[in-house]
Amino acid sequence: MKDPKKKRDVIVAAHGGGGEMTKRLLESRILPGITNPALAPLTDGAVLDLPPGRLVVSTDAHVIRPIEFPGGDIGRLAVCGTVNDVAMMGARPLALALALVLEEGLDLAVLERIMRSVAESAEEAGVSIVTGDTKVVEKGHGDGIYITTTGVGVVAPGVSLDAARIRRGDVLIVNGSIAEHGLAIMAARERLGIQSSLKSDVAPLGGLVQRMLETRADVKFLRDPTRGGIAGVVADLAETTGLTVEVREADVPVSPNARHAAEALGLDPLTVANEGKLVAVVPQGDAERVLAACREFEHGRDAAVIGRLVEAELPLAELVTRIGGRRIIQRPSGAELPRIC
Amino acid sequence: MKDPKKKRDVIVAAHGGGGEMTKRLLESRILPGITNPALAPLTDGAVLDLPPGRLVVSTDAHVIRPIEFPGGDIGRLAVCGTVNDVAMMGARPLALALALVLEEGLDLAVLERIMRSVAESAEEAGVSIVTGDTKVVEKGHGDGIYITTTGVGVVAPGVSLDAARIRRGDVLIVNGSIAEHGLAIMAARERLGIQSSLKSDVAPLGGLVQRMLETRADVKFLRDPTRGGIAGVVADLAETTGLTVEVREADVPVSPNARHAAEALGLDPLTVANEGKLVAVVPQGDAERVLAACREFEHGRDAAVIGRLVEAELPLAELVTRIGGRRIIQRPSGAELPRIC
Repeated sequence: MKDPKKKRDVIVAAHGGGGEMTKRLLESRILPGITNPALAPLTDGAVLDLPPGRLVVSTDAHVIRPIEFPGGDIGRLAVCGTVNDVAMMGARPLALALALVLEEGLDLAVLERIMRSVAESAEEAGVSIVTGDTKVVEKGHGDGIYITTTGVGVVAPGVSLDAARIRRGDVLIVNGSIAEHGLAIMAARERLGIQSSLKSDVAPLGGLVQRMLETRADVKFLRDPTRGGIAGVVADLAETTGLTVEVREADVPVSPNARHAAEALGLDPLTVANEGKLVAVVPQGDAERVLAACREFEHGRDAAVIGRLVEAELPLAELVTRIGGRRIIQRPSGAELPRIC
Repeated sequence: MKDPKKKRDVIVAAHGGGGEMTKRLLESRILPGITNPALAPLTDGAVLDLPPGRLVVSTDAHVIRPIEFPGGDIGRLAVCGTVNDVAMMGARPLALALALVLEEGLDLAVLERIMRSVAESAEEAGVSIVTGDTKVVEKGHGDGIYITTTGVGVVAPGVSLDAARIRRGDVLIVNGSIAEHGLAIMAARERLGIQSSLKSDVAPLGGLVQRMLETRADVKFLRDPTRGGIAGVVADLAETTGLTVEVREADVPVSPNARHAAEALGLDPLTVANEGKLVAVVPQGDAERVLAACREFEHGRDAAVIGRLVEAELPLAELVTRIGGRRIIQRPSGAELPRIC
């Protein structure tokens, strides 16, 4: 005999039809943790009253695999990834829009866990989920759940990041040890024996960025080294500024666990994705202030100056190795780690 | 012998890695038609200077199947669907964020056509694509392309839609003949002989809504009858207002093609999705003005009053049939038309 209850425990096509079943799915599984005055009317969108300042909008489709991983899940990632993108523009993240693509057969218990994670991460980040959408695709046309988050935030008057202001002598700061997100995902996928000790660094950085800006340090550039890792960011910086970016290997924080995992996987930590890290460029004279601001946060305790911008004939991103050698840091081709975020 | 060029004509995993291949995909296939000053820096987000007024944010994941259909494609749908959601909040749509989930193997020529359609529809709607994201999933975990669009717009000072102001005697206006989007998709899917004559109504309604509001008619409610169709909207209205919504079958515009297709497919046009239609609720005395505003637009030429709100013991949505009978209009369960948008 079939168990009729069993049938109701997974996503089915009708959950995506926009009718009664969609309504019930929303009310019972999706909205409970995230509801707030802007979201509650369930109209086509949200009306927001924002503080003064320029508006920032950022969007990210999250297709990470596996959807639950050491240190987080796709829900936490979707919130933090977009919050961080908004923060990297110098803005205070305020609100998120959440679009779900659910695959038929997704266990509703998994959906509930992910939505709880969305709710908790949003609270930690100080943002509200103000509007959303839910679609269902047939089995074999998704991977459990994809989440696109779009964030809005406001750049306070007076804040003005601009890579064009970067000058030689400016330094690069990172807020902690790198490569943990990408390595944790790869380890989980490859089922290496190293998962247990390695966790994604996924975390919201809005508060840390606000604190950094409050120090009145001349922050010229912020970027979260996600896909492409630190390597991608420094390659971009060299291209944008026309200066050479010199990264000192000995100064780049990498945890022993991460170093071990990177070696086991044959990966360069500089090319591996992070989800709770940022690279800031500031004048050398402001570095201490910015480091002190970072260290007020759990996610900034291991903040360090990892390099600087120098004049050179050809603008390159270069690694100064522990033994004093130099090698060019190349933008990863992108083949290494698909579906890392 | 393998043709090496052939291999480069489809999406591959490395296009989604965030490295050099992603960069080239963006530059050659995705950005050309849509680039603008806000998008051009390709940073994590866009900085916008908006006119005064309350901000509206709306998001929609588009998973329609097939991705190209009579009257449009997923690109046009993704732009219009979100533009319309923003417009239904009484706002002028200004900017869109575009998040793509591409499946390995997607023909790059198809991607180019869809991006051209995005660009043309955005221009028609008067919005800019200000930021975006591109991800790639393995074959068997997507369906060519999914597009999540998030729209922002501004509600002009003085505009205030509010369903709580709806009173008995107010009327329902629709801007043209219904059910064409859903029927065109179903016909295309089922390969009925009726495709050629039936086209999706997908169109941006921001301009029409602005014109409607400019008449100073007391527009109390706007909703685009997408998934769930007119039936879903009137069921919601009865629930929200506590009034009975009376729809007169003879007054609902349905084209002969659509009527024929609905009969062939065994569908009630009231429950079928639209993508270029809206339902407005206004006082009876303002109806003529609103109809006149609609008729200034191609997508509003067949605008009509289709019903009104009346007091009744139990708030219901009711259809008054051509022969004077009455039946309850029920919110569709959602099983009818998955992946219609």
